[in-house]
Amino acid sequence: MAEKITSRETDYSQWYIDLVRSAKLADYSDIRGCMVIRPNGYAIWEKMQAALDRMFKETGHVNAYFPLFIPESYIQKEADHIEGFAPECAVVTHGGGEELTEKLYVRPTSETVIWASYKKWIQSYRDLPLLINQWANVVRWEMRTRLFLRTAEFLWQEGHTAHASPEEAQEEVLRMINVYKTFAEEYMALPVIMGRKTESEKFAGADETWCIEAMMQDKKALQAGTSHNLGQNFAKAFDCQFQTKEGKLEYVWATSWGVSTRLIGALIMAHSDDKGLVLPPKLASRQVVIIPILRGDKQAVIEKAHSICEELKKSGIHAFVDDSEQNSPGWKFAEYELQGIPVRLEIGPRDISNNICIAARRDTGEKQKLVLDEKLASSIASLLETIQQSMFKQALDFRESNTFEVASYDEFKSLIDKGFIVAHWDGTEETEAKIKEETKATIRVLPETPDFIDHYSINEPGACIYSGKPSKRKVVFAKSY
Amino acid sequence: MAEKITSRETDYSQWYIDLVRSAKLADYSDIRGCMVIRPNGYAIWEKMQAALDRMFKETGHVNAYFPLFIPESYIQKEADHIEGFAPECAVVTHGGGEELTEKLYVRPTSETVIWASYKKWIQSYRDLPLLINQWANVVRWEMRTRLFLRTAEFLWQEGHTAHASPEEAQEEVLRMINVYKTFAEEYMALPVIMGRKTESEKFAGADETWCIEAMMQDKKALQAGTSHNLGQNFAKAFDCQFQTKEGKLEYVWATSWGVSTRLIGALIMAHSDDKGLVLPPKLASRQVVIIPILRGDKQAVIEKAHSICEELKKSGIHAFVDDSEQNSPGWKFAEYELQGIPVRLEIGPRDISNNICIAARRDTGEKQKLVLDEKLASSIASLLETIQQSMFKQALDFRESNTFEVASYDEFKSLIDKGFIVAHWDGTEETEAKIKEETKATIRVLPETPDFIDHYSINEPGACIYSGKPSKRKVVFAKSY
Repeated sequence: MAEKITSRETDYSQWYIDLVRSAKLADYSDIRGCMVIRPNGYAIWEKMQAALDRMFKETGHVNAYFPLFIPESYIQKEADHIEGFAPECAVVTHGGGEELTEKLYVRPTSETVIWASYKKWIQSYRDLPLLINQWANVVRWEMRTRLFLRTAEFLWQEGHTAHASPEEAQEEVLRMINVYKTFAEEYMALPVIMGRKTESEKFAGADETWCIEAMMQDKKALQAGTSHNLGQNFAKAFDCQFQTKEGKLEYVWATSWGVSTRLIGALIMAHSDDKGLVLPPKLASRQVVIIPILRGDKQAVIEKAHSICEELKKSGIHAFVDDSEQNSPGWKFAEYELQGIPVRLEIGPRDISNNICIAARRDTGEKQKLVLDEKLASSIASLLETIQQSMFKQALDFRESNTFEVASYDEFKSLIDKGFIVAHWDGTEETEAKIKEETKATIRVLPETPDFIDHYSINEPGACIYSGKPSKRKVVFAKSY
Repeated sequence: MAEKITSRETDYSQWYIDLVRSAKLADYSDIRGCMVIRPNGYAIWEKMQAALDRMFKETGHVNAYFPLFIPESYIQKEADHIEGFAPECAVVTHGGGEELTEKLYVRPTSETVIWASYKKWIQSYRDLPLLINQWANVVRWEMRTRLFLRTAEFLWQEGHTAHASPEEAQEEVLRMINVYKTFAEEYMALPVIMGRKTESEKFAGADETWCIEAMMQDKKALQAGTSHNLGQNFAKAFDCQFQTKEGKLEYVWATSWGVSTRLIGALIMAHSDDKGLVLPPKLASRQVVIIPILRGDKQAVIEKAHSICEELKKSGIHAFVDDSEQNSPGWKFAEYELQGIPVRLEIGPRDISNNICIAARRDTGEKQKLVLDEKLASSIASLLETIQQSMFKQALDFRESNTFEVASYDEFKSLIDKGFIVAHWDGTEETEAKIKEETKATIRVLPETPDFIDHYSINEPGACIYSGKPSKRKVVFAKSY
């Protein structure tokens, strides 16, 4: 079992690192900023991938795979893009024992290499839309890294679509940011604010970036997914035109969107506690651990535990038994709490005579007696559903009670370390930069989530908290990861 | 639709390239030797991944992810390994705008980077076995490339396991080569010869390499998967020892095993024909195309086509309808033949009045009438099963009729371009090298598949066809990819 985990209150950053390592989710490697995703961490990624991949396919997308290497000449084709990404790339200069005539960048994102292919594939409006996603590794030479949240290499998916009109592209941008919102809320139990980024925070090469932002337990914001309207920028950079229905030539309209293994970090930071990981049931590859209390007729208890397990599995619940005699029940309780298994079932000889078992929730610690009858599997299934909902509700309550509307810059400064700030902003990059410089807080999102807009009267005009100039709408400020 | 495909008889290599490009399976990119796997090709990989991943998990393995980059000092730790791989690596020399103090190799395979982690994770026999698989991209700077079969970057899975005894490691090596054999035969409909490689053909760093070898339609051999017994080589290189049950310190025993996107190339080369791709039903993401013949009451035909489709889907058959009026039925027939959809259903107004439809098999071209009743889905399901079996049978017959036992070197030379040669070999590297030099044929495998051993009396002693020296067993020679 694990070393002791620092409490969140003592040191939130250390708590996170201790948890990731104790629960064997990831390790640093000897390679600068690169992590090893251990089986426990990778199992969460597999659950995320499966759910997202299904959602992508249901919205008409297919998967493909493009090269890891990007020729220097490609990355230079889009001016904003190279400015944003080239400085943080890893560069291959030698291959097969020889120096290369052109340097190859290890992809930090694949717009350029993908649009070089799209140019070959798209001639006519009949070839559009192109709705392609890629699951891949990418490399960004980050200076300060943190397991899952910011690493030199990470895993992600990147969607890259091509459209015949700006309207269709914009529809796609919104469709996908909403897919991410649904995934965050329904699978990760993580409430998010969906909306646009400011000009200064958008993707290098995009006309507009949409995002989802979530609050972590230390009240900082974490960007959990982005969807970009790339306009005709990459089509122009790669000279990708199509013949319209009317026979004219026009540049293709593009979007891209992605989420990464960073989501595992978000999941941990939003829900876990001082005992270890807390996983929402929908992302737990192991949902129920059954622990037989080995007293009296051990064999009978073990058999009962396995027969319950089989019954749960038949109902599609991912259950397993730990009947090892090497470790005590107490040790097992702590171990599976550390690992975030949503439900623990305890069953001993007395429980069997009483025809019950004890179910303990990982998220709240609450225990209840369940009758060992033919309804057990459906009781457990609803308990898992309750946990899923309740984790979302708790995270939402937490965000709401730590989101503050302020009317002055003094108030802003006194509350910015305490959560999200909803405030008026004059819309200038200058004010945005000043606030960032003075407080380290950034504008996380111009909210477009209807319930959030209503709740905070986002669209009511007012005066900028910094400059006092007129403001058409409020925005959300926070410190962030 | 596609350009014309060169026939196999005219030019087998060109046929392969034409097919891969016409069926939109893959494209070369501008990056030397790197391919783009297009959605049609990637869909095959996804089916392969799903089946293999399930088989790996059923045999107790879990997935993880290790860094893309390997420090130069790692790769130098195992002498044979660096000799085999370093010359064909891509090398990163710069990151984040600065020259690196230590060069990073883009992984050609991950033994070294994984054993650097295993050293941290393994202390005692209680930490063993470690049964981990990784799905990843790797890079090998190949001089001559061919889509899917040999590319600078490719996708694969690599299993890396750690064991407390040599017997357990050997069991794992055999377990996994048998998983590959089952996958090749039951999913790819590809008969393979399983066995050991000679010393000169084994993996750089292994004590022993096991493989599966398949015959392509041009009668060349293709290595479709390998499983290596790494002995204690990597444990020694990374100083990875464990405490045994008896309290002694011992180096850990290791295996590794992998298959790659090369399998897509094998699948094409083994089964496809001059009309295009032929996919075994178990690896077809689209198994049945329904083509309504749009005459008379078009709406009624279209509705019937969709209602059949729904029925098939309910039974778990991956069916779809192409009811576009833009293309003729003839165009559609050719297009879905090119794409390798295993079954085509045609249905016109007259068929509806007769309560039948026509089912055409992609593999043989045979057509049959099927009654439109409640048994339709189960008829189609058995037709798909028949196709799967029959494709395997055809490939096996082909291999058997192109495998020759020879007793002399003259006979060997006259037949080596016509298929596999089963012959006696004296067991020396010298003879092996001479035969390779003179004929370009190599020893593909020392067979261990019981039915193959029986059929060709592999274990009967005899005289080497080259040196005339005594030979304990026969081996399989062939030219290869």
